[in-house]
Amino acid sequence: MRTTTGWQSLDPTTNALTRVTIERRDLRPDDIAVRIDYCGVCHSDLHRIHGMLGEKNLVPGHEATGVVVATGEAVTGFAVGERVAIGTIIDSCGECAMCLAGQENYCYDRPTTTYGGTDRIDGTPTQGAYSREYVLREKFAFHLPDGLDPAAAAPLLCAGVSVWEPMRSAGVGPGSRVAIAGLGGLGHIAVKLAAALGAEVTVLSRSTAKETDARSLGARSLLVTTDDAQVAAARGRFDLILDTISADHELTPLISMLGLDGTLCVLGNPLLAGPKLWELGAGRKKLTSSGTGGLRQTVEMLEFCAEHGITADVETLPSSEVETALNRLAAGDVRYRFVLDLSDLDK
Amino acid sequence: MRTTTGWQSLDPTTNALTRVTIERRDLRPDDIAVRIDYCGVCHSDLHRIHGMLGEKNLVPGHEATGVVVATGEAVTGFAVGERVAIGTIIDSCGECAMCLAGQENYCYDRPTTTYGGTDRIDGTPTQGAYSREYVLREKFAFHLPDGLDPAAAAPLLCAGVSVWEPMRSAGVGPGSRVAIAGLGGLGHIAVKLAAALGAEVTVLSRSTAKETDARSLGARSLLVTTDDAQVAAARGRFDLILDTISADHELTPLISMLGLDGTLCVLGNPLLAGPKLWELGAGRKKLTSSGTGGLRQTVEMLEFCAEHGITADVETLPSSEVETALNRLAAGDVRYRFVLDLSDLDK
Repeated sequence: MRTTTGWQSLDPTTNALTRVTIERRDLRPDDIAVRIDYCGVCHSDLHRIHGMLGEKNLVPGHEATGVVVATGEAVTGFAVGERVAIGTIIDSCGECAMCLAGQENYCYDRPTTTYGGTDRIDGTPTQGAYSREYVLREKFAFHLPDGLDPAAAAPLLCAGVSVWEPMRSAGVGPGSRVAIAGLGGLGHIAVKLAAALGAEVTVLSRSTAKETDARSLGARSLLVTTDDAQVAAARGRFDLILDTISADHELTPLISMLGLDGTLCVLGNPLLAGPKLWELGAGRKKLTSSGTGGLRQTVEMLEFCAEHGITADVETLPSSEVETALNRLAAGDVRYRFVLDLSDLDK
Repeated sequence: MRTTTGWQSLDPTTNALTRVTIERRDLRPDDIAVRIDYCGVCHSDLHRIHGMLGEKNLVPGHEATGVVVATGEAVTGFAVGERVAIGTIIDSCGECAMCLAGQENYCYDRPTTTYGGTDRIDGTPTQGAYSREYVLREKFAFHLPDGLDPAAAAPLLCAGVSVWEPMRSAGVGPGSRVAIAGLGGLGHIAVKLAAALGAEVTVLSRSTAKETDARSLGARSLLVTTDDAQVAAARGRFDLILDTISADHELTPLISMLGLDGTLCVLGNPLLAGPKLWELGAGRKKLTSSGTGGLRQTVEMLEFCAEHGITADVETLPSSEVETALNRLAAGDVRYRFVLDLSDLDK
């Protein structure tokens, strides 16, 4: 066994994590070991620490970057010293229709999640990237393209691909009218990606507080969703609305702003219930959701980001300040993603 | 004023309609008068007779065929004696984004429905095609293509276009895997249209009772939705499921049978509520609905049906037997659409 150090949630009532020693498996032939340098703090980490999925003793973290420090004997795609990125899943069955389609995130046998999952071979619980070292199959690791800052790129691996896949699925490109509801961790990357894809981007927000930010991220405008007149004037305006709002909220005003055959993709709150079908029927509107990304599109997204110079806007903290990061995230006090610097775990 | 004869609902607690004299307006310059020969009996007629939309004293009927008997002075598209068809809407604002897109059925100023609506000029209530004569703007009338039997073609104007538009929107064509849930008035036409578009069609039904019919309509197979094993084996199988079931039912089993980026279009029961978003998220599935059709696609659908020899399977009754038709429709005792022959109103 290899050992490393990480941050574990031992009490679901608090955001205070405990520094612990973690065992990592000895490398299997197709494994690589990664020194984790940076890991983003995802809103789902917060939910899961507090027991949304009934998990206990989590070591969170599923959007990370680092450097390869060891390779299994059969590894062909990575060499020691290379930059690497890790996302939300680290294994899947490899045989079902979803895996064969390159959508391992929807594996019919359930993908193995980076933390809170169960290793498919030895049955041990997976522990995430709020830690200094991670071991995974090379198939599920990504080369971090040159030119991307490793701290600012870490959130691309969850927040980035989570908004990339539904935009690609909806065919976003030049001339697309895209709205991003909620300007947080997912939302701010969505604005950058949509704008780089050539779309005309509008941010939907409850106030004008983020208007300057929205424009600097690439949006043409910000629409205030608490202003009924603005919502009414935007009837039928958008081809795609990506809803990244994590709080409970009404979908009806968003649906009203979709054009014919438009799509509302709800990402921020998977527990929301859909509206009555007639609301969708008036204009043949589509309601959908999506869950992170598969290997193929994660690679495409990283290459697109490298080409267009896109990373997250991050605030980087030493990993010892993880509680502060989680508390401020819970309070909405972050522009736009916290990233933990794990190098302090060497001390 | 012109007068004609029709069947009116004067008591929402019964399917017995009353033979009444109806006034029709004198022809405006762009109006045509149509002798109605046949009118289909739509499930929504039944709902609306019983007050679902709070209407009173309805003369139902919105899928009809007949012959032009008079034309206004400015009419250019129709001549006396030509075959004509009438659908679910007879006017719209003509100026909004939906009208400009040829989707008058979604007119932002509300389309004028063939019955239970309000005329946009004189404010009178519209009375439907369970009557011997109808007057409407030529823009909203359709030429009935040669070769289509006028009785069997009547249901194309509502049931037909209601399934045509969502199939076209979803891009159904050769190789598409399409399922039709419910084999009634809409469902049986959907099977014919989907098969003619080149799709591989499966009928989803509660029992095998309609299996022979399903195959003869063009389906490859029938899947029994009450058999959990069959549903489980069909996981991820369909690109599009058209749900034409009018009774309350669970959407979850249908969603499970959608493939990646697949679409569930709920047509039969617009009062159903959508599932939790996470159900759609596991495989990026889309939930939608649709409401009849616009002028452009209605014309396309009629031409497609003429080319492929597609009409509804109908049971034609004299209009004096409308109560029998409604009672049997309510009991599900029809294969697959009742059509009223209005010629008995001349007697």
